[in-house]
Amino acid sequence: MRRHNLSVLLSAVHRDGPLTRAQLTGALGLSRSTVGDLVGGLAEAGLVHEGRPRAAAGRGVGRPSLVVTPRERSATVLALYLDVHWLRAAVVGLGGAVLERGTVQVPSEAPPDRVAALAGDLAARLVPEAADRARLVGAGVAVPGTVRAGAGVVGLAPNLGWVEQPVGEQVAGELEARLGRGLAVAVGNDADLGVLAECRRGAARDTADVVYLCGTWGLGGGVVSGGHRLTGSRGFAGEVGHIGVDPEGRPCHCGSRGCWEAETSAAAWAAPLDVDPEAPDVAERLLERLDRGGVAARRTRERVSRSFARGLASVVNVLDPHVVLVGAGLWRDLWPVVEDDVLPWVERLVLPALRGHVDVRLAGLGADSTLVGAAELALAPLLDDPLALAPA
Amino acid sequence: MRRHNLSVLLSAVHRDGPLTRAQLTGALGLSRSTVGDLVGGLAEAGLVHEGRPRAAAGRGVGRPSLVVTPRERSATVLALYLDVHWLRAAVVGLGGAVLERGTVQVPSEAPPDRVAALAGDLAARLVPEAADRARLVGAGVAVPGTVRAGAGVVGLAPNLGWVEQPVGEQVAGELEARLGRGLAVAVGNDADLGVLAECRRGAARDTADVVYLCGTWGLGGGVVSGGHRLTGSRGFAGEVGHIGVDPEGRPCHCGSRGCWEAETSAAAWAAPLDVDPEAPDVAERLLERLDRGGVAARRTRERVSRSFARGLASVVNVLDPHVVLVGAGLWRDLWPVVEDDVLPWVERLVLPALRGHVDVRLAGLGADSTLVGAAELALAPLLDDPLALAPA
Repeated sequence: MRRHNLSVLLSAVHRDGPLTRAQLTGALGLSRSTVGDLVGGLAEAGLVHEGRPRAAAGRGVGRPSLVVTPRERSATVLALYLDVHWLRAAVVGLGGAVLERGTVQVPSEAPPDRVAALAGDLAARLVPEAADRARLVGAGVAVPGTVRAGAGVVGLAPNLGWVEQPVGEQVAGELEARLGRGLAVAVGNDADLGVLAECRRGAARDTADVVYLCGTWGLGGGVVSGGHRLTGSRGFAGEVGHIGVDPEGRPCHCGSRGCWEAETSAAAWAAPLDVDPEAPDVAERLLERLDRGGVAARRTRERVSRSFARGLASVVNVLDPHVVLVGAGLWRDLWPVVEDDVLPWVERLVLPALRGHVDVRLAGLGADSTLVGAAELALAPLLDDPLALAPA
Repeated sequence: MRRHNLSVLLSAVHRDGPLTRAQLTGALGLSRSTVGDLVGGLAEAGLVHEGRPRAAAGRGVGRPSLVVTPRERSATVLALYLDVHWLRAAVVGLGGAVLERGTVQVPSEAPPDRVAALAGDLAARLVPEAADRARLVGAGVAVPGTVRAGAGVVGLAPNLGWVEQPVGEQVAGELEARLGRGLAVAVGNDADLGVLAECRRGAARDTADVVYLCGTWGLGGGVVSGGHRLTGSRGFAGEVGHIGVDPEGRPCHCGSRGCWEAETSAAAWAAPLDVDPEAPDVAERLLERLDRGGVAARRTRERVSRSFARGLASVVNVLDPHVVLVGAGLWRDLWPVVEDDVLPWVERLVLPALRGHVDVRLAGLGADSTLVGAAELALAPLLDDPLALAPA
């Protein structure tokens, strides 16, 4: 019972930031003395601290309620996001703040053990001090593929060419070698983690129906509907990138043709504009090329924007989301430039009842959503049992 | 508390059929004496009867447990399904059995009050006796359109040309006039009611991820994902008929082009085969025409089957259902003839991980799913508070 209450209290301040004892008492439905005891336990473990709210000092009548704040460096996790040609890493603290970050390019067709080695390099670079390494309570990895979560196995990542790869195990091995200590490694689908992060601390807080899109060389989708993450019968639901938008369209990695992903990701933009679609900085190159203008730029922009609108309209008709979030990846970089090409088409293509109600915008956590989602995944065990897993 | 337990017990026998007192005791987690009291209350109200199981008589050791059976004629509902050119009606009893049925053709572009009058005619014909009318506890109406459930208002039914029509009120008025008594009338979307019926007593029992398709002149979808009905933020989710499958395709009622519905419903089949797409018996005419064969029949079949496969593959990729059920309407009639044209294409178009796992079949309740779903909707208040609403 106490463990459960500690979990609820720490999760509340992790999610919502500093809260007064009075707010916690109200939110948790517990007595003041119980909340006092719980806060004491967490403070003793070093996970939170308590103090007078600075702004309120001297104001108002009576003693102001003490404020409970998560200590962001007391427990940290390593978050990794593999976006095909880039491996991004962050150290994220309790409370969700990104404390350190780093990025490294991934060679084309790198196998999982190579990526795991790069993850080890990044981790060693981002957390050089033994004292900081001791505060890591886990690692989370976001990958553009289907994941068997319990096992940390990537079932299929078409844009990486990976099938049935034990990514969790490989990353754990490299981290242990480079950091000098074992860490639990959790693996998740990038878009699923993106939507998790946006619902928890991004643009979809308090929203029960969200579609989150991400990816540069693919188009991943994470869907929350009626407050529940859409998983489907085998965990493959939400693969909106494989809605067929054009029967005569481009071949897709998945073996089909004209998938939303094939018609709108890096390759669809890059080929007609003489940009290398595999270039790690393809987004910048495309933006530059679009900025230069010309017939090819105009036509490509028109064609790809319409394809994007077609897929978006199908997604909106099937899922009726409150908001569609354009998250980490190519479309986030392009969105400010093409938004006005895309949205009028979406308005024409969705059901009449939905016209005027389609809300598509940039993810609140920007390019960090997937990383923050990976961090949330890695922090879950600590939040579940704070005293057992708090760093000594 | 007793009301809740009565509700759970009656719902159990309504859904699962005859159950022994021992089974009920186990399933409800209540004591034998409490179950005895509840069964007594429901039996006194005439809703169930108790008796020795016939097959078990004389077998086994000791006294066999008494069997509780819903009395199907003790409380009945009127179920209506409007499939554009047809109004189908049934009297459904407690336990879900269809006791009477009738069908009437609906003139093209009939306004809601005309359809309500036809519903009144059918009701008066199906339930001529005053004693039977007294046992009706409500009516349910399935319509191919979006419904604001609480108000019984059809927001938009594109294939009927209806916008913001108070269908529940109009049907209630006609039933009162023709049956001589007021009845609560509940209205629901046809596909949502179809999937409800299939989950409760059809081909999707114990299945948490189901897509149900229905319609002749349109293609409605009802989706259950992770055990929850997909509603979306405004109640429009599940409109799989408006996934775009061909940017160069046929204009759709919704204002878009190449929607799955436009490419695969009656009009898409009928026009190239010289069949009147508005004919109420369009399915039979099409079957006859396909049976006669020839180039146009072969080409149309190939083209429409591929379009159907395209939409189906998108649905499977986005929702990863355990099963797709082909329910009331045109595709149910055509499915045995075109299944072998459709399924190989679906296998080619879905994600590799889903190949070999796509299960598409006829709805378990056949053409009755939507009617049975409408009946379930109408029976809900009785199941919620059996003693208050049992017919005297």
